[in-house]
Amino acid sequence: MMVRALAFDVFGTVVDWRASLIAELQEFGNRQGVQRDWPKFADDWRAGYVPAMDLVRRGELPWTRLDDLHRRILGELLRDAAIEAAEGDIDHLNRAWHRLDPWPDSVAGLYRLRERFTITTLSNGNMSLLIDMAKRAGLPWDCVLSAEIFGHYKPDREVYLGCAKILDVAPDELMLVAAHPSDLRAARDAGLRTAHVERPMEYGPGRKRTAIEPDEFDVTATDLVDLADKL
Amino acid sequence: MMVRALAFDVFGTVVDWRASLIAELQEFGNRQGVQRDWPKFADDWRAGYVPAMDLVRRGELPWTRLDDLHRRILGELLRDAAIEAAEGDIDHLNRAWHRLDPWPDSVAGLYRLRERFTITTLSNGNMSLLIDMAKRAGLPWDCVLSAEIFGHYKPDREVYLGCAKILDVAPDELMLVAAHPSDLRAARDAGLRTAHVERPMEYGPGRKRTAIEPDEFDVTATDLVDLADKL
Repeated sequence: MMVRALAFDVFGTVVDWRASLIAELQEFGNRQGVQRDWPKFADDWRAGYVPAMDLVRRGELPWTRLDDLHRRILGELLRDAAIEAAEGDIDHLNRAWHRLDPWPDSVAGLYRLRERFTITTLSNGNMSLLIDMAKRAGLPWDCVLSAEIFGHYKPDREVYLGCAKILDVAPDELMLVAAHPSDLRAARDAGLRTAHVERPMEYGPGRKRTAIEPDEFDVTATDLVDLADKL
Repeated sequence: MMVRALAFDVFGTVVDWRASLIAELQEFGNRQGVQRDWPKFADDWRAGYVPAMDLVRRGELPWTRLDDLHRRILGELLRDAAIEAAEGDIDHLNRAWHRLDPWPDSVAGLYRLRERFTITTLSNGNMSLLIDMAKRAGLPWDCVLSAEIFGHYKPDREVYLGCAKILDVAPDELMLVAAHPSDLRAARDAGLRTAHVERPMEYGPGRKRTAIEPDEFDVTATDLVDLADKL
């Protein structure tokens, strides 16, 4: 196994979207003077992402950046929750996805991994989202790549193969690092190497983990520092 | 003038391609046991770049990465110079473009500029070339963007406007930083802001500078540290 580059899923794998969104929603609620079940609101916002993306993947929506999909879902959730707010406040809240905090091991792990490998994002987030996030959180990417570059959302194979092509490596010289088995399986089917990172707290405490077969992926790690140890 | 992001031309503006190539060519010559006029060889290699790219821009060649255009020009120059070498040695020499050294002010200037702006490459070099270069030279880009992403070479306007779109800024919130007036003029015509950086040694000592009109560009700087002072 001769891996030259690592491509990282970002939401859930590198950053803790749930805790970050809950904190931003609480702040938003305080400013607006409303109280709701913000953890559930955050989960619903995230849950709207796959169906919205699938509209694009099936061609029922033209190419739409994740920022705009998030904004659309947020508008519906606010309406359902009977929350009225100024457009500027809603836009600021929508950009909470640009301000997600990394898991505690992410920055240290990435610094170690970038000594040996080219490290890139490979996320469904749009480029400006990923760039803003990296700048704020200090994520030391060699390169920021996104579904937006390829005009396809993961798990479309164009994203995995497009990433290998742009990095000028063979598919089996590129390893996808992700917490989500579905993403890893699609990458493996496209010929990439795979590293599974366990993020048991991604969906909050007490959630059941998605089952994976033993040895289903090339490497399994408890976090990005552990991944650096193993690679 | 509300600039939010800076896009940098790379060859000549951020890195000293000529001195770097001459050093690599001398090393190549020593290994092969041949002596030639390496400064002239470097200049000829660079001079082949615009006509080769124009074949792509006019549609006479399908999209071809700069690495492959460089390799093609290098093959012709070696043949004309009656130099025979192993394919592996020629490929290594061709990748000298991935190993160009920055001007002495580049790294310090970029670190200062990235505190206030999103900074990206906007080069005709392919992505893997720019990523390898940044890693080796320690260029702290927030983002690596290239003609390869847009399927167009500068000075096609798709490159300048595509960069603004991906960074999610208006064209006039994006400033091109370049040593070459032709690049800056095309960026300006596409609606971008422009910063001219003087690199009098780009083509070696004693070369005449390209004339520019006073106040033709928004900012003129002697190097990237001076640019940070001025912005």
